[in-house]
Amino acid sequence: MWRQHDLALESHPRGFHLITREVVAALPELAGVQVGLLHVFIQHTSASLTINENASPDVRRDFERYFNRAVPDGWEGFEHTQEGDDDMAAHIKASTLGPSVTLPVRDGKLALGLWQGIYLCEHRDHGGRRRLVLTLMGE
Amino acid sequence: MWRQHDLALESHPRGFHLITREVVAALPELAGVQVGLLHVFIQHTSASLTINENASPDVRRDFERYFNRAVPDGWEGFEHTQEGDDDMAAHIKASTLGPSVTLPVRDGKLALGLWQGIYLCEHRDHGGRRRLVLTLMGE
Amino acid sequence: MWRQHDLALESHPRGFHLITREVVAALPELAGVQVGLLHVFIQHTSASLTINENASPDVRRDFERYFNRAVPDGWEGFEHTQEGDDDMAAHIKASTLGPSVTLPVRDGKLALGLWQGIYLCEHRDHGGRRRLVLTLMGE
Repeated sequence: MWRQHDLALESHPRGFHLITREVVAALPELAGVQVGLLHVFIQHTSASLTINENASPDVRRDFERYFNRAVPDGWEGFEHTQEGDDDMAAHIKASTLGPSVTLPVRDGKLALGLWQGIYLCEHRDHGGRRRLVLTLMGE
Repeated sequence: MWRQHDLALESHPRGFHLITREVVAALPELAGVQVGLLHVFIQHTSASLTINENASPDVRRDFERYFNRAVPDGWEGFEHTQEGDDDMAAHIKASTLGPSVTLPVRDGKLALGLWQGIYLCEHRDHGGRRRLVLTLMGE
Repeated sequence: MWRQHDLALESHPRGFHLITREVVAALPELAGVQVGLLHVFIQHTSASLTINENASPDVRRDFERYFNRAVPDGWEGFEHTQEGDDDMAAHIKASTLGPSVTLPVRDGKLALGLWQGIYLCEHRDHGGRRRLVLTLMGE
């Protein structure tokens, strides 16, 4: 069984945001999959996806602070500067965290650990809406 | 063909550890897959998985030293500190390296390069047992 | 439907290189897949794959400069030094960016965003040819 859905996420402020609920809500066929995988892909190069702690909002704020220190906006080594100080840093962060997550599916649900959630990582100041492609496969 | 197995890894000390053998041993159906993929997923947010050099133990020690410098325990910018100095750093490292690896399968075996192995990346001082979900698919 | 192909990439200089066209050209069956995924895997531990901006060459030069600063050749903390100053740094970069990318397939094409392309990330001064395994699945 193969199903694919587009999911357009509303504009999020720069930072890390839990989107597990929105992703699951976009997958009506999930309940019918006994064993499978879900692939979630973001069609952008200045935002990314990851899996991390789904409880404390301070964890998500720490992600934002840490990655801003690790990849500074407007770093002096950047040549690609015409789209703003946050642009090239956003590209680097996006590849460090990655454009997709792949999750196991079991008994009609995502087989995530108790504390795991899907993060949208918005690396731009004004990233706007973000398009995801969800691919569900299994049997 | 879809198969899914849980694999509980014994407690490993903080650091990077080769687990290719344990993963393969948990997959009796691997020998029957001509073309496929194996997805290995860790159900935790303070340990991760990656692929790297399967020979020299000093490579794995260098991973540990490098990531400890890149993401310092108890970094002054961290707000989420109540679970110990190693906790928030572990979350950041886990997302940098990622919660899963996906590997090609060919002729009943993992189609890894000669020097590639699967690493468990244990980012906590006392992480305890770690649960993996292995999803094997193909034909 | 499952298909697997080897793709040997010619030697590339150290740096980040667009390879989307070569990958697609190696997949004659892509046009017949309505819904699916493409998994691209590199069988090496000192080069990696990522998705990023497919237009400006300065973005790819900034990737090279940034990762050289983040993971310095011959860093004093490295113990694994016998294969050259660029070797251990290459292993770290390879795991940070990752050994594979997984892409949605729709209507016979990769469902990439407008600005997305596949990068070969060559982290060694003389990496030589690099072997990829392409696994196409779907229906």
